[in-house]
Amino acid sequence: MAKMWKGRFKSKTHPLMEAFGQSISFDQELGRQDVAGSLAHAKMLHAVGLLSNGDYKAIKKGLDSIHKDIESGKMRYDPANEDIHMSIEAELTARIGEPAKKLHTGRSRNDQVATDLRLWTREKQDVIMGRLRDLMNALVDVGQRERHLVIPGYTHLQRAQPVLLAHHLMAYVEMFARDRERMADCRRRTNRLPLGSGALAGTTLPLDRDMVRKELGFDSLCENSMDAVSDRDFVIETLFCLSLIAIHTSRLAEDIIHWTSSEWSLAKLDDAWSTGSSIMPQKRNPDLLELTRGKTGRVVGSLVSLLMVVKGLPMTYNRDLQEDKEPLFDAVRTVDFVLECLAAFLPTLTFDKNRAAAMLQDGFLDATVLAEYLVEKGLPFRSAHEVSGLLVRRAEDTGRQLRDLSHDEMRAASPLIGIDVYQRLDPARTPGSYKTAGAASPRSVSRALTAWRKRLAK
Amino acid sequence: MAKMWKGRFKSKTHPLMEAFGQSISFDQELGRQDVAGSLAHAKMLHAVGLLSNGDYKAIKKGLDSIHKDIESGKMRYDPANEDIHMSIEAELTARIGEPAKKLHTGRSRNDQVATDLRLWTREKQDVIMGRLRDLMNALVDVGQRERHLVIPGYTHLQRAQPVLLAHHLMAYVEMFARDRERMADCRRRTNRLPLGSGALAGTTLPLDRDMVRKELGFDSLCENSMDAVSDRDFVIETLFCLSLIAIHTSRLAEDIIHWTSSEWSLAKLDDAWSTGSSIMPQKRNPDLLELTRGKTGRVVGSLVSLLMVVKGLPMTYNRDLQEDKEPLFDAVRTVDFVLECLAAFLPTLTFDKNRAAAMLQDGFLDATVLAEYLVEKGLPFRSAHEVSGLLVRRAEDTGRQLRDLSHDEMRAASPLIGIDVYQRLDPARTPGSYKTAGAASPRSVSRALTAWRKRLAK
Amino acid sequence: MAKMWKGRFKSKTHPLMEAFGQSISFDQELGRQDVAGSLAHAKMLHAVGLLSNGDYKAIKKGLDSIHKDIESGKMRYDPANEDIHMSIEAELTARIGEPAKKLHTGRSRNDQVATDLRLWTREKQDVIMGRLRDLMNALVDVGQRERHLVIPGYTHLQRAQPVLLAHHLMAYVEMFARDRERMADCRRRTNRLPLGSGALAGTTLPLDRDMVRKELGFDSLCENSMDAVSDRDFVIETLFCLSLIAIHTSRLAEDIIHWTSSEWSLAKLDDAWSTGSSIMPQKRNPDLLELTRGKTGRVVGSLVSLLMVVKGLPMTYNRDLQEDKEPLFDAVRTVDFVLECLAAFLPTLTFDKNRAAAMLQDGFLDATVLAEYLVEKGLPFRSAHEVSGLLVRRAEDTGRQLRDLSHDEMRAASPLIGIDVYQRLDPARTPGSYKTAGAASPRSVSRALTAWRKRLAK
Amino acid sequence: MAKMWKGRFKSKTHPLMEAFGQSISFDQELGRQDVAGSLAHAKMLHAVGLLSNGDYKAIKKGLDSIHKDIESGKMRYDPANEDIHMSIEAELTARIGEPAKKLHTGRSRNDQVATDLRLWTREKQDVIMGRLRDLMNALVDVGQRERHLVIPGYTHLQRAQPVLLAHHLMAYVEMFARDRERMADCRRRTNRLPLGSGALAGTTLPLDRDMVRKELGFDSLCENSMDAVSDRDFVIETLFCLSLIAIHTSRLAEDIIHWTSSEWSLAKLDDAWSTGSSIMPQKRNPDLLELTRGKTGRVVGSLVSLLMVVKGLPMTYNRDLQEDKEPLFDAVRTVDFVLECLAAFLPTLTFDKNRAAAMLQDGFLDATVLAEYLVEKGLPFRSAHEVSGLLVRRAEDTGRQLRDLSHDEMRAASPLIGIDVYQRLDPARTPGSYKTAGAASPRSVSRALTAWRKRLAK
Repeated sequence: MAKMWKGRFKSKTHPLMEAFGQSISFDQELGRQDVAGSLAHAKMLHAVGLLSNGDYKAIKKGLDSIHKDIESGKMRYDPANEDIHMSIEAELTARIGEPAKKLHTGRSRNDQVATDLRLWTREKQDVIMGRLRDLMNALVDVGQRERHLVIPGYTHLQRAQPVLLAHHLMAYVEMFARDRERMADCRRRTNRLPLGSGALAGTTLPLDRDMVRKELGFDSLCENSMDAVSDRDFVIETLFCLSLIAIHTSRLAEDIIHWTSSEWSLAKLDDAWSTGSSIMPQKRNPDLLELTRGKTGRVVGSLVSLLMVVKGLPMTYNRDLQEDKEPLFDAVRTVDFVLECLAAFLPTLTFDKNRAAAMLQDGFLDATVLAEYLVEKGLPFRSAHEVSGLLVRRAEDTGRQLRDLSHDEMRAASPLIGIDVYQRLDPARTPGSYKTAGAASPRSVSRALTAWRKRLAK
Repeated sequence: MAKMWKGRFKSKTHPLMEAFGQSISFDQELGRQDVAGSLAHAKMLHAVGLLSNGDYKAIKKGLDSIHKDIESGKMRYDPANEDIHMSIEAELTARIGEPAKKLHTGRSRNDQVATDLRLWTREKQDVIMGRLRDLMNALVDVGQRERHLVIPGYTHLQRAQPVLLAHHLMAYVEMFARDRERMADCRRRTNRLPLGSGALAGTTLPLDRDMVRKELGFDSLCENSMDAVSDRDFVIETLFCLSLIAIHTSRLAEDIIHWTSSEWSLAKLDDAWSTGSSIMPQKRNPDLLELTRGKTGRVVGSLVSLLMVVKGLPMTYNRDLQEDKEPLFDAVRTVDFVLECLAAFLPTLTFDKNRAAAMLQDGFLDATVLAEYLVEKGLPFRSAHEVSGLLVRRAEDTGRQLRDLSHDEMRAASPLIGIDVYQRLDPARTPGSYKTAGAASPRSVSRALTAWRKRLAK
Repeated sequence: MAKMWKGRFKSKTHPLMEAFGQSISFDQELGRQDVAGSLAHAKMLHAVGLLSNGDYKAIKKGLDSIHKDIESGKMRYDPANEDIHMSIEAELTARIGEPAKKLHTGRSRNDQVATDLRLWTREKQDVIMGRLRDLMNALVDVGQRERHLVIPGYTHLQRAQPVLLAHHLMAYVEMFARDRERMADCRRRTNRLPLGSGALAGTTLPLDRDMVRKELGFDSLCENSMDAVSDRDFVIETLFCLSLIAIHTSRLAEDIIHWTSSEWSLAKLDDAWSTGSSIMPQKRNPDLLELTRGKTGRVVGSLVSLLMVVKGLPMTYNRDLQEDKEPLFDAVRTVDFVLECLAAFLPTLTFDKNRAAAMLQDGFLDATVLAEYLVEKGLPFRSAHEVSGLLVRRAEDTGRQLRDLSHDEMRAASPLIGIDVYQRLDPARTPGSYKTAGAASPRSVSRALTAWRKRLAK
Repeated sequence: MAKMWKGRFKSKTHPLMEAFGQSISFDQELGRQDVAGSLAHAKMLHAVGLLSNGDYKAIKKGLDSIHKDIESGKMRYDPANEDIHMSIEAELTARIGEPAKKLHTGRSRNDQVATDLRLWTREKQDVIMGRLRDLMNALVDVGQRERHLVIPGYTHLQRAQPVLLAHHLMAYVEMFARDRERMADCRRRTNRLPLGSGALAGTTLPLDRDMVRKELGFDSLCENSMDAVSDRDFVIETLFCLSLIAIHTSRLAEDIIHWTSSEWSLAKLDDAWSTGSSIMPQKRNPDLLELTRGKTGRVVGSLVSLLMVVKGLPMTYNRDLQEDKEPLFDAVRTVDFVLECLAAFLPTLTFDKNRAAAMLQDGFLDATVLAEYLVEKGLPFRSAHEVSGLLVRRAEDTGRQLRDLSHDEMRAASPLIGIDVYQRLDPARTPGSYKTAGAASPRSVSRALTAWRKRLAK
């Protein structure tokens, strides 16, 4: 049963070739999808008269029982069958005999595997989009909880201007929102039916592809049979979507690694989410975050892997394409798990308000506000920037903050500086004065929290 | 003028640092976009009262004249200015003096460069989508011209079943159509305005971001200032879209390299599109196609490059991001050129009908049709496949084709085989009997040609 | 037992964190190496007086029995232990009790895992170098067997000049020879001992690192403890070596795919090494070679993956590095298998002498020889090239080969052409006239076959 | 002159094809090498009698004058010539006429370009190895200067154990030393001569390859002509070596970015090597280091690019290989510049002793020493680790350091703790007690500084 194509061959396949070519060790993952595809195919064969009533009933009963065994975890695959498709057909033959031989009518492994893989991918895209929503919800929750906390915002890993922590977290909501959009776009391109394309050219049998399409919930048909059996764009695009998600989680991980480092001490890891050292008893390591960051390499590696596989492949199906599954399965599993962990972890992260307050006092985080104050007073921006820079230098040289400079010192730099300047010079209150849409101000952040809460509830 | 931030610094920048940090040698590319962004910014500053009438007029006049000089190719950038933004501001200052100092009000290089790059990318996405349309048109044209030509279709680079050449070409139309869709999706995510996000936190000045958005034709605002200045997803996604396009062109190139090889001799390169050898006078090399295939590596390399740059970057802007431009510029330029060349080249490719006809006669391309004939006669598919396989083996062993077998030989394999089988056994006529939607049949291909002609005309 | 560092922690590790952080599911692979490292470490601890006689004996006995169970496949790892190191220590504790607690003295998981991984990698590098030798031997064997067969040599996939098939095969011997050299160089850099570096700083205990080094057969010590625990260059370099091997096998696969394609029909796949089609009974597909080509992407993906992991990692050990193992294990397994299969497959490939002879007659493969004939007669090369090109064009236009041109036609192109030219104009004999070292001539190829046979026998 | 192979072609090359196929815009870089190769080739042609005395003298004179013009920067390349090889031959023809036509005798562009590229690569490998030495010297210098400074060593970006700053720096010396070794190994494989291999098969002309080899300083000949013209392993391996160097510089950059961040404030950037902000006057950004980190992506992208180009390429030369140059040139230029900058920058970095001392007091950096103390007193390591962990927890809960715990509190945890423990509990003095080879101790570090100083002086 294992090999359907041995009619013309004279000698047995070499055992190394069998082991090298088999995919049953990993494409078992597609069991449910293969059965679903076969059920729809059989129903259609029956409808167009290529399968008798009795044969169809037997096939349906057999496949249903296999489906049940897969769902319950009872199904065992014989490694002698080279792939999941042969395994299931062999199993069906064992259960129902002769009618099983008719199931593959008008079908090739080429369009069959493409169909199974699209069904699987579509399902996982939905799972990942759900995980993204969960993580975005967690970010909104923490943002809401900490909505009054002001921390330094950074550029170049240097303190730059004060921001609300919630604003920082909401930046990640924006990233993951783009990721969801992107995955949804990719899902549209995934949700097309290749089945009915045969090996590459279609078939002379009168199959009704549209009936199968509806049965399996695809939006449309793959319109060209040669493209249908060799197209793996949907896999590659999914890997790309996962890569960008992984990149975004790596950035979030990096930020939290910093926040929880000894030097920052801005946030603290819960014991449940940190690990210790085999030699240093004092350690509380952010392993979750480091693994998250590290796993980015793995996901991108899978993307590169498949891009390389398809580069320069001639038409149509080539066996190289068997290499599409493992990177996809691994990347989906990885990102799925990373997102699940981050969503569970985030709410356990706690912040140190006092440390945040202390950090704001150091690093001249109000220097930009001072420059903008001068712009309001009429100084051209470039000059305002220069004046503010000189005052920073003066303060720094004498170990002071901007607000510690006397009004006389200030006025020496620019006569436009009034006594009202001191009201502006407190980084902790700066966010309140940001005026632009999307700024790190309480008003803008609160609007974003509400808006996202609503969008995510849909 | 070159460095706007020297107020606080005591010593001069090291010449190596200057050379290392400069980007003017490549970000000149953004000149037009930078001017456009500044014009919109100035108009808004004026509207919200941060720029006097006179200052605005001076700035507008200055920027207009710079724009003109860029368009006419007269603009020269002083390498002493580290980047395009400083270059243009320096030039503006040289032309209009004092008012130029007010242009940067409420703006940071962070949101400025993000805006310029989105403007540039959006423009190029449109260019690439146009090029894809041209190439698809060329494929449809050649398909139409050769609509009667039947060639072997391949799987595993082995002859499999007969297909229309036009069907083979239309498979690429499907690929490039997905590429266009994907790029259009990416364009939506690109077309958001970061300007007004300041360095990372927004600004205390009352900027009207929505006015700038309308002025520059963006669909919406980047909603979070921290995300706005550090988001390069649109660059990476563009690089991914370009990578898949390059992959598809590499496959098309591979096919044509095969077709024009000595062994296939199915198609012939026009002299205008082939090159010779410095040592072998008889050579006619498909350099265009080999370069096309090779350049795929370059485009994917750019994608990998940028994925690596952003991995693990902490919030918000880090100078690493300066590395976003060269890979993007190079990949756009490469794919743009590849597509332009392929569209011009394709119509010059000629096919050898006799060779095609000869190829069809070799390789048992009608074996599947024979199996399907048996299915129609009532044999289960697996058995039909077996019978057909045995007959192929018999024909092969005796150096014949399937149609050379006698009816008796046929019937010995299966009594279901009638004398009508011989009508089916001619690969040249096989495509006419494919029945499924999207198959390699004249009917299906003709429908696809017409449909795409229409869609592309829009 | 699972977690050695829980002394200071108040709450239990989150189950998701446990599952996310575990590596026992894949680092079991390091079982033998972990025991070997521990044996050497214990012996040294005893020698320097940190382990009593009795404790050492107990530990040694315990580790020996674990080693035996690993070798015999009886060892089972409790998934509750997060990694192989903890698993083995837990097992040791279960077997010998208290003394097991002393084994980790002066050791950290950081230097322990680095040591295990170097031991494993060194072993596999030797395996791969052996496989390369086997494949090179197979190439030499086939080259020897087919030493008289002349085939077209190609550039741009266009017939260029005649070469011995053996010369073509020996080109791959050169590639794999470089691969072996490269791997041997990498092995030198791998064969350094990190153990004794502690977590990152060394230890205050008087360990004798050099004794452990000798015990485990390392060439030298990692000289800096911080580098020792965070250095994964040896893994990355191994992945690179494997990537180039994979690239070379992909090129060999591509060549044979062409040779066995319908169009070339130069070589034939043995049934034992080809596979059929589920729908097309006539197919004999080169799946081994396509999978070989496809798996290149996978190996390179692993390289990219790890390069991305280590990029920008701060000193010293970070948990990201746990991501080093799976790509390494997978790439080693993949390349190991590919090389084994190719070496077994190659001798079964058969060549069609008649087809080879026919191919040589087509494509003006003697055009270069004609040009060189003219150079010998005194014509400058550029002019000789031009004359030869004109004669090719004349022959091509009239459907002839060069040797079919009359002497008068020849002399019209250049009076330097004597009647002796016809002796040169037979591609089948051309290789005999190549004179340079390393050329595709029988003499040069025979020398190479003999030389490699000798080198490989060492 | 531009195209040497037009003899047989009937129509002109399409302008797009010309522009697409040209390489003169970037392979100008190979001008000097092309002339050197031609000089050696001509000398040999003369020696074996294929070039008359007069012709050789004319060629030599012409090439010498071109060489001079290249060196002085006067040479201009006509874009009408497709590549550097044709450009130089055209220029030679312009200068000396007829004899120039004989220079290409027995040579193909395939072996010519391979030779030029090996000459170029060899030269640059030496440059990079020199730059590595300079950077290692700079690290040793700073290590020497700061040899008494103790800082926290980190794992997981968490303070772990005290180390000498010099030890941390010397870890990078180890990395760059491996990089040099690796590059030297790669240079051996680069330094082989392809010239004399013709287009792919060698030549019937009696060339003396070994004479050319000696003339150009190559170690050996490429032994197989087909391999010789299509082998780009040396380019790919060089790109890999550069990638690992870039990875190492990215790690060094990351460390210094942390050290100079507001939170660490351990080191300070000199004004000459930091940059300011266009909007925030207080900023002092580590742009050099961020660009260094970012450029890693670019170098690895080039490696991936070329791996992808050569994957699955059939024998022998294919035009895809023209894509080898730009990634190589760019990666060499990038790494060369990064190394030069880092070597110049490092000595300007200053460290804050007080901040270092303060950092040591926080984070229980002496916890491991305490555990090891207990081991010395006879406690099994695992128990010692536990006791130390409990004491850390007690200290942490009450806001104290380990040394602030009373002897009674200590003894409650373990009666083995004597009063002498307090002598050990000072992180600032801990390095003095590390005993192992390669540890972060003054003795070990001083030995390493001396050893490297010596090795680098050679």
